[in-house]
Amino acid sequence: MRLSRLWLPTTKETPADAEIVSHRLMLRAGMIRKLGAGIYSWLPLGLRVLRKVETIVRQEMDRAGAQEISMPMVIPAELWQESGRLTKYGPELLRIEDRHQRDFVLGPTHEEVVTDLIRRDLRSYKQLPVTLYQIQTKFRDEIRPRFGIMRGREFLMKDAYSFHLEADDLEREYRNMRAAYARIFERIGVEFRIVKADSGAIGGDRSEEFHVLAGSGEDVLAVSDASDYAANLEAAEAAIPAVRPSAAEALARVATPAQTTCEAVAGLLGEPLSRTVKLVVVKGREQPLAALVLRGDHEVNVVKAAKHPMVAAPLQLAGEAEIRAAFGCPPGFLGPVGACVPVIADRSAAMLADFICGANEVGFHLRGVNWGRDCTEPVVADLRNVVAGDPSPDGRGRLQLVRGIEVGHIFQNGALYTAALGVRVQDEQGGDRIPVAGCYGIGVSRIVAAAIEQRHDEAGIVWPEAIAPFSVIVCPIGAGQSTAVAEAAQNLYDELAAAGVETLLDDRGLRPGPMFADADLIGVPHRVVVGERGLAAGQFEYKRRGAGAAEMIAATAAAVREKLSA
Amino acid sequence: MRLSRLWLPTTKETPADAEIVSHRLMLRAGMIRKLGAGIYSWLPLGLRVLRKVETIVRQEMDRAGAQEISMPMVIPAELWQESGRLTKYGPELLRIEDRHQRDFVLGPTHEEVVTDLIRRDLRSYKQLPVTLYQIQTKFRDEIRPRFGIMRGREFLMKDAYSFHLEADDLEREYRNMRAAYARIFERIGVEFRIVKADSGAIGGDRSEEFHVLAGSGEDVLAVSDASDYAANLEAAEAAIPAVRPSAAEALARVATPAQTTCEAVAGLLGEPLSRTVKLVVVKGREQPLAALVLRGDHEVNVVKAAKHPMVAAPLQLAGEAEIRAAFGCPPGFLGPVGACVPVIADRSAAMLADFICGANEVGFHLRGVNWGRDCTEPVVADLRNVVAGDPSPDGRGRLQLVRGIEVGHIFQNGALYTAALGVRVQDEQGGDRIPVAGCYGIGVSRIVAAAIEQRHDEAGIVWPEAIAPFSVIVCPIGAGQSTAVAEAAQNLYDELAAAGVETLLDDRGLRPGPMFADADLIGVPHRVVVGERGLAAGQFEYKRRGAGAAEMIAATAAAVREKLSA
Repeated sequence: MRLSRLWLPTTKETPADAEIVSHRLMLRAGMIRKLGAGIYSWLPLGLRVLRKVETIVRQEMDRAGAQEISMPMVIPAELWQESGRLTKYGPELLRIEDRHQRDFVLGPTHEEVVTDLIRRDLRSYKQLPVTLYQIQTKFRDEIRPRFGIMRGREFLMKDAYSFHLEADDLEREYRNMRAAYARIFERIGVEFRIVKADSGAIGGDRSEEFHVLAGSGEDVLAVSDASDYAANLEAAEAAIPAVRPSAAEALARVATPAQTTCEAVAGLLGEPLSRTVKLVVVKGREQPLAALVLRGDHEVNVVKAAKHPMVAAPLQLAGEAEIRAAFGCPPGFLGPVGACVPVIADRSAAMLADFICGANEVGFHLRGVNWGRDCTEPVVADLRNVVAGDPSPDGRGRLQLVRGIEVGHIFQNGALYTAALGVRVQDEQGGDRIPVAGCYGIGVSRIVAAAIEQRHDEAGIVWPEAIAPFSVIVCPIGAGQSTAVAEAAQNLYDELAAAGVETLLDDRGLRPGPMFADADLIGVPHRVVVGERGLAAGQFEYKRRGAGAAEMIAATAAAVREKLSA
Repeated sequence: MRLSRLWLPTTKETPADAEIVSHRLMLRAGMIRKLGAGIYSWLPLGLRVLRKVETIVRQEMDRAGAQEISMPMVIPAELWQESGRLTKYGPELLRIEDRHQRDFVLGPTHEEVVTDLIRRDLRSYKQLPVTLYQIQTKFRDEIRPRFGIMRGREFLMKDAYSFHLEADDLEREYRNMRAAYARIFERIGVEFRIVKADSGAIGGDRSEEFHVLAGSGEDVLAVSDASDYAANLEAAEAAIPAVRPSAAEALARVATPAQTTCEAVAGLLGEPLSRTVKLVVVKGREQPLAALVLRGDHEVNVVKAAKHPMVAAPLQLAGEAEIRAAFGCPPGFLGPVGACVPVIADRSAAMLADFICGANEVGFHLRGVNWGRDCTEPVVADLRNVVAGDPSPDGRGRLQLVRGIEVGHIFQNGALYTAALGVRVQDEQGGDRIPVAGCYGIGVSRIVAAAIEQRHDEAGIVWPEAIAPFSVIVCPIGAGQSTAVAEAAQNLYDELAAAGVETLLDDRGLRPGPMFADADLIGVPHRVVVGERGLAAGQFEYKRRGAGAAEMIAATAAAVREKLSA
């Protein structure tokens, strides 16, 4: 394609409201333009990349035996009522009303629709298993859309759904999809990691996420340095500590007039922070409140804590007034000794002996506290975020924390939706069965941004070959003054295009500086410069995007193609 | 693909609420399923056809130099406010509110969005011309969705937009798009016609529609039998009649006690209906009412009438009370003589002499009426629908009326949107100019239904080769009993698939009757039956869908492929 005919509005200025590099570069490279908060148009250059990702996803889904369908974006609200998610999904679900005042939602995910589709026509076990997928624009009304298309409201998603007679067949397909996803990210050419995950608003028994690794990622991942254990921090299990030491100290009350944090108390007493505990008071599920006890150096994991049967989901902190009413003292001096709300201790806090905690009295803490002796043995649960250096829960190695961008998520939903929507199928014996299901999502548009987060430099984007908008850019220098340059560039362009190489010819007549800056910015993997001096020596200048230096090669299309396949 | 692994829920029953054949066949062939009024899911078989249409459209757009982009479906309402269409577009525009109570619309068309996109980055005439397109799901809140996907609410559309410095460059691109559209419909393999059209809610100077010809089409087209003149009935011009004859009769008042229609009056008087005129009273633009005068054998054209500067748009009939108040008599006896509301006569009615009309008095009509003599000369305009046999307005031949399904519409909008949104560009002399624009739409999903309306028989769909979901279906007879049959069918399937032929193997083990019925229903162009008797003679049975009889061919993949290319 000739650059002069491509709608490619590149800019040098860094857009003011773009917080992360992919957002900045996608705007600067003329890939996207903002229409509203979290709503973007894809310009030709951006769409070329998006379509390449989409094509790889589609090919691998087809190869894995999934069948493409297309479900509506506007969904009758009754169907979401039937599954119970109309109220449960929360305000990210955009509700709309048509001209006849009938209620609809803009589909953020399609479990209900596909399950309804299946129940209409499913008669016999012979129709199972079946895996259906679609690649579709979806809408989630994010409260604070940001990071460009990374956390936009309208986005392109591949969502697949499988239905099975038996759980073990679901497990087989789950592995099949897992493998297809791995092939997709390998082919795209990004470094990724599969991690255990929480099922969130989709629900179900088991789920894993696919993350593109990038320092700017919103998610923290815990990965073992000695095994393949990897989990989203939300879902990462803290290993069970060895045993609780015996009590050695006597209980003592110490004055801590101004010390309302574990750090301050530990400092005052000259003790390690890991010997202190803190109480986090939250709303309870059956009782009004529950007190979570964690070591001073640990943080509550809101997802794990909210799964505890004594804790309300989602996790809600108690207010100061509620705390004062229940404990007779303000936050900052709370502790499990004599606490009158149910106490749940994190595994690590539960294994402490001779620990330090608030005295439930303003200005005082206790030291030498021991579970069972000074207060009742607590309910014990895994409540905390793992930290770097924790033992891996599979017993092999220690955990490291890395950052990732979630680009895929696979779930075993079991009978969650099929039961809610009353799907039935006859098995081989003529019995009536509820099929089980899995669902498998990929954030197609988000992959584009994630790839940029992982692969860029100061000059711009460094595309992986497989999703680059063009493979080669031909840059003629001084084509306006030199017929030889203009002709050689044109011939090279024609020959590469004829050979099926996606080539961009920069025929805008710019000076070398701005021309090379644009080439670097948009990240085309291979650049060929056609100049008068080089031509006189029978040479083109060749540079691979991201490589340090340019080199001279023979001034032929064949020499360029050799570089492409190198 | 193996049919046993394809989600293909075909049915024998005719769905109760499907009024037209394409809707019935798409449901029966398992191509689509209804989710809500005018909202459908596309199952694998349907989507294969849709994607083939989409691919042809994309290829021809690319070939014509258009660049693909992707604009959001959820559009900030301010943008539609800016163009003035937020109020003008009417209730088909679905308005929504996000969680922050900001107003949006679900885009039924994207003139505003693309014009905004252009104004953000357009600086110089050098960036023009540019043609951008997208293939996108759109939503129009039809008051009465029906005919399946033919007049659905959610549908797939290709919309393209071009921007130019000069009107003559817009004309060039309009012709370029017109030619691309013609190639698209030729490649798809449907019989179509290009007709002059009204610009409707899109607006602008000039527009043409592309219609797939089908007896069930909602639109009536007027086409000349001796020239290439063709127009939608809405836009078809009535030729100007020769001259008005001289008055020959004296004005006479006749009693018509029970005759309130032109037919009844003509019958009573023994005169041709074409000598009577009727008054259609409508709301006026400046004045409260206007009276349209048409020959008794002609009908008002609501689109043409509403364009008259004295008539309110859209056309609204006056109520009986208003008519009584203005004329002092009820409808049924109205006429232009002594009428006290402005009179606009259709060209044909204006050319009458000695005509018959109501006397504006209950129970009486007038005959021998003459314009100028008995009442003032009327304002004259083209107000009526053309009828079969009318002379073609280009002076060549006579008009015939045929039915069509609108599948494409191209427009020259001129500066309609660019001016409203304040787009400016510098020309070569440094002057500030408003660019002009065109827009070009294709109903991608509607083409699928239109093709079925044009090509089907009692047994099912007869796909054009280019958009058939599969090219060949292999039907083994008694494969469960005969290893030879099973193997021969499998080998044929493998060989055809390896040669890139899209082949469906019916491995469901059905009896020939239901198997052939499904093959005919889904409309695969080529059917190969593999049976024991045929194999014994070294033969397959081959039948082209829609052809009368089957024939025996050599039992080889080569023989089958020869048939495919025949």
